[in-house]
Amino acid sequence: MDHAADCIARCRSLALHTEEPGFTTRTFLSEPMRAVHAELCEWMRRAGMAVKVDAAGNLRGSYPATVPAAPVLFIGSHLDTVPHAGAFDGILGVVIGVKLVELLAGRRLRFGIEIVGFSDEEGVKFGFPFIGSLALIGELQDARAFGLDPNELPSAVAREPSLGYLEFHIEQGPVLESLGLKLGVVEAIVGQSRIELTFKGKAGHAGTTPMHLRQDALVKAAEWIDAVEREAIATEGLVATVGRIEVQPNAPNVIPGAVKATLDVRHRDDAVRRAAVERLIALAKPDHHEVRVDQPAVTLDPHLTSLLARSAPHRMPSGAGHDAMIVARRMPAAMLFLRSPGGLSHHPDESVLPEDVAAALVAGMKFLEDLETRP
Amino acid sequence: MDHAADCIARCRSLALHTEEPGFTTRTFLSEPMRAVHAELCEWMRRAGMAVKVDAAGNLRGSYPATVPAAPVLFIGSHLDTVPHAGAFDGILGVVIGVKLVELLAGRRLRFGIEIVGFSDEEGVKFGFPFIGSLALIGELQDARAFGLDPNELPSAVAREPSLGYLEFHIEQGPVLESLGLKLGVVEAIVGQSRIELTFKGKAGHAGTTPMHLRQDALVKAAEWIDAVEREAIATEGLVATVGRIEVQPNAPNVIPGAVKATLDVRHRDDAVRRAAVERLIALAKPDHHEVRVDQPAVTLDPHLTSLLARSAPHRMPSGAGHDAMIVARRMPAAMLFLRSPGGLSHHPDESVLPEDVAAALVAGMKFLEDLETRP
Repeated sequence: MDHAADCIARCRSLALHTEEPGFTTRTFLSEPMRAVHAELCEWMRRAGMAVKVDAAGNLRGSYPATVPAAPVLFIGSHLDTVPHAGAFDGILGVVIGVKLVELLAGRRLRFGIEIVGFSDEEGVKFGFPFIGSLALIGELQDARAFGLDPNELPSAVAREPSLGYLEFHIEQGPVLESLGLKLGVVEAIVGQSRIELTFKGKAGHAGTTPMHLRQDALVKAAEWIDAVEREAIATEGLVATVGRIEVQPNAPNVIPGAVKATLDVRHRDDAVRRAAVERLIALAKPDHHEVRVDQPAVTLDPHLTSLLARSAPHRMPSGAGHDAMIVARRMPAAMLFLRSPGGLSHHPDESVLPEDVAAALVAGMKFLEDLETRP
Repeated sequence: MDHAADCIARCRSLALHTEEPGFTTRTFLSEPMRAVHAELCEWMRRAGMAVKVDAAGNLRGSYPATVPAAPVLFIGSHLDTVPHAGAFDGILGVVIGVKLVELLAGRRLRFGIEIVGFSDEEGVKFGFPFIGSLALIGELQDARAFGLDPNELPSAVAREPSLGYLEFHIEQGPVLESLGLKLGVVEAIVGQSRIELTFKGKAGHAGTTPMHLRQDALVKAAEWIDAVEREAIATEGLVATVGRIEVQPNAPNVIPGAVKATLDVRHRDDAVRRAAVERLIALAKPDHHEVRVDQPAVTLDPHLTSLLARSAPHRMPSGAGHDAMIVARRMPAAMLFLRSPGGLSHHPDESVLPEDVAAALVAGMKFLEDLETRP
């Protein structure tokens, strides 16, 4: 079997370790997570790595450098999944990392490599994401709430000197596919705003209230949803989504008296995003609004990113959060996206093409060579 | 106490008979309905009426004419309520009818008067409205499903010769109030269409899917909701309402993949209504739609209506269904609306003004006089 096909087969095999038969659902510190650790551990050991599970439940496979105390390149992604997940989101990045070490075939580099399988990125178990990567950078607060021992957590922190962090991940969107590209280099993780808005009108009888005497909250909201779409289209790189809407009383024969809606706005430039949010709230003229999330964009490391871009010249932002965004707080981080067929993720039909995995492996090996040979 | 204030006090007192303490909720054949019958029966008897409860649970108070076998004028409305109702919807029409007979003070007319308190108009108990008035006109099917004896039902049918039917009812809308009028004569009950539409898009990640690669079902629906509003405003007398909307998956960070919406369209002219429905469906270009209701308009009796209009010159359609719409199938029917403060009905704050009830009593007495003195 070729290396790409082997990566895909490993992901499909690991997807069978699930809390819910017939689906792939695997959360933080669960029984099937241990089974995934066991399989990965076996592959890691065979590739020459020393393996442990750290105090945050991350699987860590350490491949030594030519000399002791050499800097370490971390390669990782997460091993947990959303409920009813696919076989590739997260775990593919770990499997590719292991495969890259296998491809070294025992050859040592000037730097060490540590493959990290994060214990929790999706945040399904505690409604709190990035537990694994926060532990790696020493920023996990309130460990006991997650069943972890705070006295042990310091041992999970990435040891210095670190060379950087590399993450392979499926795109989870349709951009690469629409461009006919296998790979994309992530330059930044977009910032995100989430706002909840309330439109008030006046509930009334759908038959007895003439149009000119109505205050229809859903009509107000609908005009605004149109405006959100137009504004987002008019602003390069902006995405804005009204994903949830609740109508009161939501009865066919009653004029809507109130509508609650959510607005999700993302852009790689925080100033552009915040200006858009202000405009969209001003357009809404809501009776009430609350900013629930205002998370800044994260720029990935320009040097590592440009190394990756030698193999994968298309540069793009990531619209979703990733472990790389967390790890970037502590060390240079870079990220490579693999095309997502149909833009699909968080779904049993999520997939990845063998030729795209092959291209990622080539890009990964080139990245390691470049780090080895460049000053 | 003056007559109008007495009518209001009676309605408020009857509103205390409820299935749910603290609210007014009174459905078909319920215990509190019997208590309402008992109070009304007492007032009817004192006014000189013979009282019975018919086989459909309607309360019938019969006031004789000067001669036997004279034609009968029916005056009525319904005694049941929606859950958490106000004190006037329906029952005010019965209380005013009783008061008109009281005001005759024993004087007999060339025609008999029968006051009818219908047992079920709202359809709360069986999800099927107009049980009482359908029984009065001999068109109630499937009596057993409502706990009624089909062999007894023929005895509930209005006896011939009938002179007609008169119904007093609160407007349940804001039109009279907006015009500064106490009363309005109903010329027609509007026809009604109800359609369910489905808009399909493609669910996707709110962060990773650029605007130009989206198929957002809620954006499609929102554009259409705007168009519905514009079309309805542009068509004289048309009301169109999108009252219920269901978004899939309705999550803040997921582009809506599908939206189900209801459309309620009403107009007094069936051709105008049906043309509007066709236009609105064509504008929607829905992935699926289903016409759930297509109920024709009902024109009330021009002669009786013009008699009422002598006291209450403002003519208007009713946007809601009423017992008069059912009874009109069998005999000439007329209907008088009393202004609804705030346009409010089906709500504990529903009210009626004493001066409007006074005006309705004057109009009612004038109506009886006109029927008595005109050929």
